[in-house]
Amino acid sequence: VTRPEPDRGSASDLADELSRLPRARRAARFRLLEKDTAAAVFDALDPVGQAELLDGLRDPETTTLFEGMDPDDRVRLLDEVPAAVARRLVSGLSPDERRLTDVLLGYPPESAGRIMTPEYLELRSDVTAEEALAAIRRAGDLETLQILPIRDASRMLCGVLRLPALVRAAPEVRVGEVMDPGHPVVSAYDDQEPVARLMQEADLLAVPVVDRERRLVGVVTVDDAMEVLEREETEDLQRVAGLSEPVHKPYHSVPTWRLVRARVVWLSLLVAAATLTVSVLGAFEATLAQAVTLALFIPLLIGTGGNVGAQAATTMTRALAVGDVRWADTGRSLWKELRVGLSLGLIFAAVGVPVLWAIWDLDLALTVSVSLLVICMWATSVGAMLPMLADRVGIDPAVVSAPFVTTLVDATGLLIYFAVAHAVLL
Amino acid sequence: VTRPEPDRGSASDLADELSRLPRARRAARFRLLEKDTAAAVFDALDPVGQAELLDGLRDPETTTLFEGMDPDDRVRLLDEVPAAVARRLVSGLSPDERRLTDVLLGYPPESAGRIMTPEYLELRSDVTAEEALAAIRRAGDLETLQILPIRDASRMLCGVLRLPALVRAAPEVRVGEVMDPGHPVVSAYDDQEPVARLMQEADLLAVPVVDRERRLVGVVTVDDAMEVLEREETEDLQRVAGLSEPVHKPYHSVPTWRLVRARVVWLSLLVAAATLTVSVLGAFEATLAQAVTLALFIPLLIGTGGNVGAQAATTMTRALAVGDVRWADTGRSLWKELRVGLSLGLIFAAVGVPVLWAIWDLDLALTVSVSLLVICMWATSVGAMLPMLADRVGIDPAVVSAPFVTTLVDATGLLIYFAVAHAVLL
Repeated sequence: VTRPEPDRGSASDLADELSRLPRARRAARFRLLEKDTAAAVFDALDPVGQAELLDGLRDPETTTLFEGMDPDDRVRLLDEVPAAVARRLVSGLSPDERRLTDVLLGYPPESAGRIMTPEYLELRSDVTAEEALAAIRRAGDLETLQILPIRDASRMLCGVLRLPALVRAAPEVRVGEVMDPGHPVVSAYDDQEPVARLMQEADLLAVPVVDRERRLVGVVTVDDAMEVLEREETEDLQRVAGLSEPVHKPYHSVPTWRLVRARVVWLSLLVAAATLTVSVLGAFEATLAQAVTLALFIPLLIGTGGNVGAQAATTMTRALAVGDVRWADTGRSLWKELRVGLSLGLIFAAVGVPVLWAIWDLDLALTVSVSLLVICMWATSVGAMLPMLADRVGIDPAVVSAPFVTTLVDATGLLIYFAVAHAVLL
Repeated sequence: VTRPEPDRGSASDLADELSRLPRARRAARFRLLEKDTAAAVFDALDPVGQAELLDGLRDPETTTLFEGMDPDDRVRLLDEVPAAVARRLVSGLSPDERRLTDVLLGYPPESAGRIMTPEYLELRSDVTAEEALAAIRRAGDLETLQILPIRDASRMLCGVLRLPALVRAAPEVRVGEVMDPGHPVVSAYDDQEPVARLMQEADLLAVPVVDRERRLVGVVTVDDAMEVLEREETEDLQRVAGLSEPVHKPYHSVPTWRLVRARVVWLSLLVAAATLTVSVLGAFEATLAQAVTLALFIPLLIGTGGNVGAQAATTMTRALAVGDVRWADTGRSLWKELRVGLSLGLIFAAVGVPVLWAIWDLDLALTVSVSLLVICMWATSVGAMLPMLADRVGIDPAVVSAPFVTTLVDATGLLIYFAVAHAVLL
């Protein structure tokens, strides 16, 4: 990636450099930047970085930076600072910017209303292309000019005009004739994730946002949609790994105790669930004492079961997230995963039986291989079903995927193992 | 999410509906669509869905659909069809479209050159804003008009003009004065992922692509960047779960044997690695025979170690992917994860010692709790280090994350457990 001259690319480089400095030194470094560069670098920081930097700056500096932000970025920053700081920052805003900020703060967290820009240029459907271009020139530097919402005589949104279509239109044509009346529209109360996915799937650069009365209130731009999707992916990945509170901050900005807190909740649940394995083994203690060799394969069997289950759960979680699989497909998915589990189990048994027979004996070889076969089928079924059930009852499937499935398969896998051992060996 | 009238949103809905039908019925359903809708629905399908649909259509239909695609989408589709079909499709193209397609096919897979559009409007820096707008009107419907690459008298790229800036410029101003000379530029040979991340971080709607001589060859648009990022996220998530060949197709379009193939490679490696646990336990068989109770805690200890390691590995993999952590931070990261592991271990020990003491005895309580403490510290260290080492030697960190870390921690965790048991109990 080459960059001809320092500008936007380098603002994000400088922001990167800044957030890698120890917190105490960032404000001093930031003050060395030229005024315009400083504003660009501040914009390029993520909300956590902005909050940390503001902490080290003095009041007139923070007021200027805060006033210069886009309203949606400002709202995101407010989520990251202590309530007292948020109040001080908002009270320092000019009346205009404060009004725009209040509009966004009126919508629920995680809603489209929080990431929209309330500053847009709205046109009536009967203005001409020439008049529309003149209006754009008068409007100055808005965050989004990629789409222009068009309203009819009754002030209702009736379509969307894309800037390239406007530029290509003959000057005397009315915008109502070149607008797209079927452009998607979202509600300010919609969740951010489906809005972002819609924009991604339909390749939209921006989408108009309306309130409950279908009046236009803002526009969501594609850069905000990309940020939402990245945050969701990070969250999914972290949940799959059993992190209860997704951590959005850069790794080294997170205090150790917060990393511990993010991890300990799920771990404790998993440890509590894992005590099941102790009980199961406790019930078979006599069998174990009789045939200690059985113990040797416990980690191999439950480890493999866990891995097989995690694969199935991850595949299904992702398929649910991108909408490939729905509740109605449950039977089909389960049947498919059962066959996958059977195939995997047969492959392992084909290798395992001769090897184990050569080292130990046929009974042990059969016990371990048959157990592994059954555990594989059980693990793919559990891995497929748990995320679907979670999705059905309204829990994020990522929450119950890999670690949860692994632990469940651990305890039940032991039951399978000892049931098979009793049947074959004893 | 509301959609006023069927258009782009509904093309992606129809595409969704189509790809959920059994393959044999898709072509028949597709033929019922109106001509314009059919083209939009075809565009909205992912490359795999397009390939499956083409398979059921007849030659004149496929030729028309293929001719109507954007060159970058066409190249992606060619990757999904058998070589013979690809040759037939390309040979049916008009000379113009064929030339554009060949340009893209000339760049390596996964490079920016493969996802760029080679159709763009390039302007000389000395034309006026008015002339530029007239050129846009003459140019017709290009995939990207969001940015206009500007070249100097020596035909080299010297900057980028954003469409809103052009519209706002006075008619007589030269585009060289309103262009952005510092706009990021990428090479056609750059990997797609860093290009997409740059576009996301710098909020770019499009970025010009140059060849090795810095001559402009195309433009990458933000919708393609979003697709690249989604594919990478899916790949990372699948790798974290130990799937060796990331599967990009919709779940129910993937034959069972391909799901098995995607999973069996890593599983076999993991099973092979897990035989280490059999050897470790084999070495301690005498100890186990002497104190069978020790066996009861094996799944709990290694399961928890695996979960702790997976959390650390996932956190680190993500931090590496988004650039929060680098090789230079290794010491700092390791120190941080050691403290996290220690904290987690102390929390578990604080609960575990009294509980285990009450049920069994103090020696066992100490053995299990001290082992868990050491395993937690070991697991966070391994979880932090393996992805960093992988990244350092040029392997995707996601490949060596959760399942690999889990299996490694399983075997070494047993060593720790028996070492502690020998010290405390025997």
